Amino acid sequence: MKASRRDPGAKGATDMRGIQGILEAAVYAEDLDAAEAFYGGALGLVRIQRVRDRHVFYRAGPSVLLVFNPAETVKPAPPGALPVPPHGARGPGHVCLAAEGAELDALKTRLLAHGVEIEADFHWPNGARSIYVRDPAGNSVELAEWRLWRPVAE
Amino acid sequence: MKASRRDPGAKGATDMRGIQGILEAAVYAEDLDAAEAFYGGALGLVRIQRVRDRHVFYRAGPSVLLVFNPAETVKPAPPGALPVPPHGARGPGHVCLAAEGAELDALKTRLLAHGVEIEADFHWPNGARSIYVRDPAGNSVELAEWRLWRPVAE
Repeated sequence: MKASRRDPGAKGATDMRGIQGILEAAVYAEDLDAAEAFYGGALGLVRIQRVRDRHVFYRAGPSVLLVFNPAETVKPAPPGALPVPPHGARGPGHVCLAAEGAELDALKTRLLAHGVEIEADFHWPNGARSIYVRDPAGNSVELAEWRLWRPVAE
Repeated sequence: MKASRRDPGAKGATDMRGIQGILEAAVYAEDLDAAEAFYGGALGLVRIQRVRDRHVFYRAGPSVLLVFNPAETVKPAPPGALPVPPHGARGPGHVCLAAEGAELDALKTRLLAHGVEIEADFHWPNGARSIYVRDPAGNSVELAEWRLWRPVAE
Protein backbone atom coordinates (compact mmCIF):
# COMPACT_ATOMS: atom_id res chain seq x y z
CA MET A 1 0.00 0.00 0.00
CA LYS A 2 3.06 2.25 0.02
CA ALA A 3 2.30 5.25 -2.15
CA SER A 4 4.82 6.45 -4.67
CA ARG A 5 6.53 9.61 -3.45
CA ARG A 6 6.71 10.99 -6.93
CA ASP A 7 3.10 10.87 -7.94
CA PRO A 8 0.98 9.27 -5.24
CA GLY A 9 -2.46 9.26 -6.72
CA ALA A 10 -2.37 12.72 -8.26
CA LYS A 11 -4.48 11.61 -11.20
CA GLY A 12 -7.27 14.14 -10.99
CA ALA A 13 -10.53 14.63 -9.17
CA THR A 14 -12.01 11.33 -10.35
CA ASP A 15 -9.47 9.59 -8.15
CA MET A 16 -10.82 11.09 -4.97
CA ARG A 17 -12.75 7.99 -3.93
CA GLY A 18 -15.96 9.81 -3.25
CA ILE A 19 -14.60 12.19 -0.63
CA GLN A 20 -16.45 15.45 -1.17
CA GLY A 21 -14.90 17.76 1.37
CA ILE A 22 -14.03 18.43 4.98
CA LEU A 23 -17.07 17.93 7.18
CA GLU A 24 -15.31 18.66 10.48
CA ALA A 25 -12.05 20.27 11.48
CA ALA A 26 -10.95 20.10 15.11
CA VAL A 27 -8.87 22.22 17.42
CA TYR A 28 -8.26 21.59 21.11
CA ALA A 29 -8.74 23.92 24.04
CA GLU A 30 -8.99 23.19 27.75
CA ASP A 31 -10.89 26.40 28.52
CA LEU A 32 -14.09 26.20 26.51
CA ASP A 33 -15.48 29.44 27.94
CA ALA A 34 -12.44 31.25 26.57
CA ALA A 35 -12.87 29.37 23.29
CA GLU A 36 -16.49 30.54 23.11
CA ALA A 37 -15.45 34.13 23.68
CA PHE A 38 -13.11 33.82 20.71
CA TYR A 39 -14.99 31.66 18.21
CA GLY A 40 -18.50 32.81 19.07
CA GLY A 41 -17.60 36.31 20.25
CA ALA A 42 -14.66 37.69 18.31
CA LEU A 43 -15.09 35.61 15.14
CA GLY A 44 -18.89 35.60 15.38
CA LEU A 45 -19.36 31.97 14.45
CA VAL A 46 -22.75 30.41 15.16
CA ARG A 47 -22.56 27.84 17.95
CA ILE A 48 -24.45 24.64 17.24
CA GLN A 49 -23.64 22.55 20.29
CA ARG A 50 -21.93 22.72 23.65
CA VAL A 51 -21.59 19.74 25.96
CA ARG A 52 -20.36 20.87 29.38
CA ASP A 53 -16.57 20.99 29.44
CA ARG A 54 -16.18 18.39 26.69
CA HIS A 55 -16.70 20.38 23.51
CA VAL A 56 -18.25 23.30 21.70
CA PHE A 57 -19.08 23.14 17.98
CA TYR A 58 -19.57 25.94 15.44
CA ARG A 59 -21.12 26.21 12.02
CA ALA A 60 -18.65 27.07 9.23
CA GLY A 61 -20.61 27.08 5.99
CA PRO A 62 -21.52 23.46 5.15
CA SER A 63 -18.92 22.24 7.64
CA VAL A 64 -18.42 22.31 11.39
CA LEU A 65 -15.54 23.58 13.49
CA LEU A 66 -15.07 21.39 16.56
CA VAL A 67 -13.38 22.71 19.69
CA PHE A 68 -12.58 19.83 22.03
CA ASN A 69 -11.21 19.75 25.55
CA PRO A 70 -8.56 17.04 25.18
CA ALA A 71 -8.78 16.19 28.88
CA GLU A 72 -12.32 14.95 28.20
CA THR A 73 -12.12 13.57 24.67
CA VAL A 74 -9.22 11.22 25.47
CA LYS A 75 -11.64 9.28 27.66
CA PRO A 76 -13.22 6.23 25.99
CA ALA A 77 -16.95 6.40 25.33
CA PRO A 78 -18.90 5.13 28.36
CA PRO A 79 -20.75 1.80 28.11
CA GLY A 80 -24.02 2.18 26.26
CA ALA A 81 -23.00 5.39 24.51
CA LEU A 82 -22.29 5.61 20.80
CA PRO A 83 -18.77 4.20 20.27
CA VAL A 84 -17.13 7.50 19.34
CA PRO A 85 -13.39 6.85 19.40
CA PRO A 86 -11.27 8.87 21.81
CA HIS A 87 -8.75 11.48 20.66
CA GLY A 88 -7.16 14.59 22.06
CA ALA A 89 -4.14 16.59 20.94
CA ARG A 90 -2.00 19.03 22.90
CA GLY A 91 -0.10 22.05 21.72
CA PRO A 92 -0.96 24.59 19.03
CA GLY A 93 -3.00 23.18 16.16
CA HIS A 94 -4.14 24.89 12.99
CA VAL A 95 -7.35 25.51 11.10
CA CYS A 96 -8.15 27.77 8.17
CA LEU A 97 -11.58 29.30 7.61
CA ALA A 98 -12.63 30.62 4.23
CA ALA A 99 -13.68 34.22 3.65
CA GLU A 100 -13.44 36.44 0.61
CA GLY A 101 -12.16 39.92 -0.20
CA ALA A 102 -14.03 42.62 1.65
CA GLU A 103 -15.30 40.08 4.17
CA LEU A 104 -11.71 39.43 5.21
CA ASP A 105 -11.27 43.15 5.86
CA ALA A 106 -14.44 43.18 7.93
CA LEU A 107 -13.32 40.14 9.91
CA LYS A 108 -9.96 41.76 10.61
CA THR A 109 -11.69 44.91 11.85
CA ARG A 110 -13.96 42.81 14.01
CA LEU A 111 -11.10 40.81 15.50
CA LEU A 112 -9.13 43.96 16.30
CA ALA A 113 -12.23 45.49 17.92
CA HIS A 114 -12.35 42.41 20.17
CA GLY A 115 -8.74 42.87 21.17
CA VAL A 116 -7.40 39.99 19.08
CA GLU A 117 -3.87 40.54 17.83
CA ILE A 118 -3.22 39.96 14.12
CA GLU A 119 -0.17 37.71 13.98
CA ALA A 120 0.26 37.83 10.21
CA ASP A 121 -1.54 39.29 7.21
CA PHE A 122 -0.06 38.70 3.79
CA HIS A 123 -0.69 37.56 0.23
CA TRP A 124 0.60 34.25 -1.07
CA PRO A 125 2.41 34.08 -4.43
CA ASN A 126 -0.89 33.23 -6.15
CA GLY A 127 -2.49 36.40 -4.76
CA ALA A 128 -4.66 34.83 -2.07
CA ARG A 129 -4.68 36.69 1.23
CA SER A 130 -4.28 35.02 4.62
CA ILE A 131 -4.80 36.55 8.05
CA TYR A 132 -3.54 34.65 11.09
CA VAL A 133 -4.62 35.02 14.69
CA ARG A 134 -4.36 32.85 17.81
CA ASP A 135 -7.31 31.47 19.70
CA PRO A 136 -7.03 31.66 23.51
CA ALA A 137 -5.57 28.13 23.59
CA GLY A 138 -2.79 29.14 21.19
CA ASN A 139 -4.14 27.47 18.08
CA SER A 140 -3.17 29.17 14.82
CA VAL A 141 -6.42 30.26 13.19
CA GLU A 142 -6.14 31.39 9.61
CA LEU A 143 -8.72 33.25 7.54
CA ALA A 144 -8.05 32.92 3.84
CA GLU A 145 -9.58 33.12 0.41
CA TRP A 146 -10.71 29.99 -1.42
CA ARG A 147 -8.35 30.77 -4.30
CA LEU A 148 -5.41 29.97 -2.01
CA TRP A 149 -5.95 26.37 -3.10
CA ARG A 150 -7.58 26.94 -6.47
CA PRO A 151 -6.45 25.92 -9.05
CA VAL A 152 -4.51 22.81 -8.09
CA ALA A 153 -0.85 23.01 -9.07
CA GLU A 154 2.15 20.97 -8.07
CA MET B 1 -16.14 40.14 24.56
CA LYS B 2 -17.26 37.29 26.80
CA ALA B 3 -19.94 35.36 24.93
CA SER B 4 -23.10 34.32 26.69
CA ARG B 5 -23.03 30.63 27.51
CA ARG B 6 -26.72 30.29 26.87
CA ASP B 7 -26.97 31.64 23.37
CA PRO B 8 -23.63 32.95 22.13
CA GLY B 9 -24.40 34.30 18.74
CA ALA B 10 -26.76 31.54 17.60
CA LYS B 11 -28.82 33.97 15.60
CA GLY B 12 -28.74 32.31 12.23
CA ALA B 13 -26.53 32.15 9.18
CA THR B 14 -26.51 35.91 8.65
CA ASP B 15 -24.48 36.17 11.84
CA MET B 16 -21.58 34.20 10.46
CA ARG B 17 -19.45 37.24 9.66
CA GLY B 18 -18.64 36.18 6.15
CA ILE B 19 -17.05 32.85 7.03
CA GLN B 20 -18.03 30.49 4.23
CA GLY B 21 -16.51 27.20 5.30
CA ILE B 22 -13.44 25.28 6.32
CA LEU B 23 -10.63 25.86 3.85
CA GLU B 24 -8.04 23.75 5.67
CA ALA B 25 -8.14 21.13 8.40
CA ALA B 26 -4.88 19.92 9.89
CA VAL B 27 -3.62 16.75 11.49
CA TYR B 28 -0.09 16.06 12.68
CA ALA B 29 2.18 13.16 11.85
CA GLU B 30 5.94 12.78 12.25
CA ASP B 31 6.22 10.08 9.58
CA LEU B 32 4.98 11.69 6.37
CA ASP B 33 5.78 8.63 4.26
CA ALA B 34 3.43 6.60 6.42
CA ALA B 35 0.89 9.43 6.22
CA GLU B 36 1.12 9.34 2.42
CA ALA B 37 0.53 5.60 2.38
CA PHE B 38 -2.65 6.17 4.36
CA TYR B 39 -4.10 9.41 2.95
CA GLY B 40 -2.89 8.99 -0.63
CA GLY B 41 -2.86 5.19 -0.69
CA ALA B 42 -5.61 3.74 1.45
CA LEU B 43 -7.99 6.71 1.32
CA GLY B 44 -7.03 7.62 -2.25
CA LEU B 45 -6.89 11.37 -1.71
CA VAL B 46 -5.17 13.45 -4.37
CA ARG B 47 -1.90 14.91 -3.11
CA ILE B 48 -1.38 18.56 -4.01
CA GLN B 49 1.88 19.35 -2.26
CA ARG B 50 4.69 17.74 -0.32
CA VAL B 51 7.57 19.71 1.15
CA ARG B 52 10.28 17.33 2.36
CA ASP B 53 9.57 16.25 5.92
CA ARG B 54 7.56 19.34 6.77
CA HIS B 55 4.14 18.60 5.32
CA VAL B 56 1.97 16.86 2.77
CA PHE B 57 -1.34 18.34 1.61
CA TYR B 58 -4.37 16.66 0.02
CA ARG B 59 -7.37 17.84 -1.92
CA ALA B 60 -10.71 17.25 -0.17
CA GLY B 61 -13.42 18.70 -2.38
CA PRO B 62 -13.09 22.51 -2.26
CA SER B 63 -10.93 22.23 0.85
CA VAL B 64 -7.51 20.92 1.73
CA LEU B 65 -6.40 18.39 4.32
CA LEU B 66 -3.03 19.34 5.77
CA VAL B 67 -0.72 16.77 7.33
CA PHE B 68 2.07 18.50 9.22
CA ASN B 69 5.15 17.18 10.93
CA PRO B 70 4.99 19.10 14.22
CA ALA B 71 8.76 18.82 14.69
CA GLU B 72 9.11 21.07 11.63
CA THR B 73 6.08 23.34 11.84
CA VAL B 74 6.87 24.53 15.36
CA LYS B 75 9.92 26.27 13.91
CA PRO B 76 9.43 29.98 13.15
CA ALA B 77 9.48 30.98 9.49
CA PRO B 78 13.06 31.74 8.38
CA PRO B 79 14.03 35.34 7.59
CA GLY B 80 12.83 36.37 4.16
CA ALA B 81 10.14 33.68 3.97
CA LEU B 82 6.43 34.42 4.17
CA PRO B 83 5.61 34.98 7.85
CA VAL B 84 3.57 31.81 8.30
CA PRO B 85 3.06 31.43 12.05
CA PRO B 86 4.41 28.30 13.74
CA HIS B 87 2.16 25.62 15.20
CA GLY B 88 2.39 21.93 15.93
CA ALA B 89 0.22 19.65 18.06
CA ARG B 90 1.05 16.28 19.58
CA GLY B 91 -1.22 13.38 20.33
CA PRO B 92 -4.24 12.08 18.44
CA GLY B 93 -6.21 14.74 16.61
CA HIS B 94 -9.43 14.42 14.66
CA VAL B 95 -10.76 15.25 11.22
CA CYS B 96 -13.95 14.24 9.44
CA LEU B 97 -14.20 13.89 5.68
CA ALA B 98 -17.54 13.94 3.90
CA ALA B 99 -18.81 11.10 1.75
CA GLU B 100 -22.32 9.90 0.95
CA GLY B 101 -24.20 6.62 1.06
CA ALA B 102 -22.76 4.06 -1.34
CA GLU B 103 -19.48 5.96 -1.49
CA LEU B 104 -19.04 5.33 2.22
CA ASP B 105 -19.46 1.61 1.60
CA ALA B 106 -16.89 1.77 -1.19
CA LEU B 107 -14.46 3.66 1.03
CA LYS B 108 -14.86 1.12 3.80
CA THR B 109 -14.16 -1.71 1.36
CA ARG B 110 -11.14 0.16 0.08
CA LEU B 111 -9.77 0.81 3.57
CA LEU B 112 -10.20 -2.82 4.58
CA ALA B 113 -8.45 -3.92 1.37
CA HIS B 114 -5.51 -1.74 2.43
CA GLY B 115 -5.40 -3.39 5.83
CA VAL B 116 -6.89 -0.46 7.72
CA GLU B 117 -8.91 -1.49 10.76
CA ILE B 118 -12.39 -0.01 11.12
CA GLU B 119 -12.54 1.32 14.67
CA ALA B 120 -16.22 2.22 14.62
CA ASP B 121 -19.11 2.26 12.12
CA PHE B 122 -22.48 3.44 13.32
CA HIS B 123 -25.42 5.71 12.67
CA TRP B 124 -26.06 8.82 14.73
CA PRO B 125 -29.55 9.52 16.11
CA ASN B 126 -30.32 11.66 13.05
CA GLY B 127 -29.51 8.76 10.74
CA ALA B 128 -26.13 9.92 9.46
CA ARG B 129 -23.49 7.24 9.27
CA SER B 130 -19.93 7.65 10.54
CA ILE B 131 -16.96 5.36 9.96
CA TYR B 132 -13.85 5.87 12.07
CA VAL B 133 -10.32 4.72 11.35
CA ARG B 134 -6.85 5.71 12.61
CA ASP B 135 -4.14 7.16 10.45
CA PRO B 136 -0.61 5.78 11.09
CA ALA B 137 0.07 8.62 13.54
CA GLY B 138 -3.00 7.69 15.60
CA ASN B 139 -5.26 10.52 14.46
CA SER B 140 -8.97 9.68 14.49
CA VAL B 141 -10.16 10.01 10.90
CA GLU B 142 -13.91 9.97 10.42
CA LEU B 143 -15.83 9.53 7.19
CA ALA B 144 -19.38 10.78 7.50
CA GLU B 145 -22.39 12.03 5.60
CA TRP B 146 -23.10 15.74 5.27
CA ARG B 147 -26.48 15.28 6.93
CA LEU B 148 -24.69 14.57 10.22
CA TRP B 149 -24.70 18.36 10.67
CA ARG B 150 -27.71 19.27 8.57
CA PRO B 151 -30.08 20.71 9.64
CA VAL B 152 -28.79 22.79 12.51
CA ALA B 153 -30.48 21.95 15.79
CA GLU B 154 -29.62 22.76 19.37
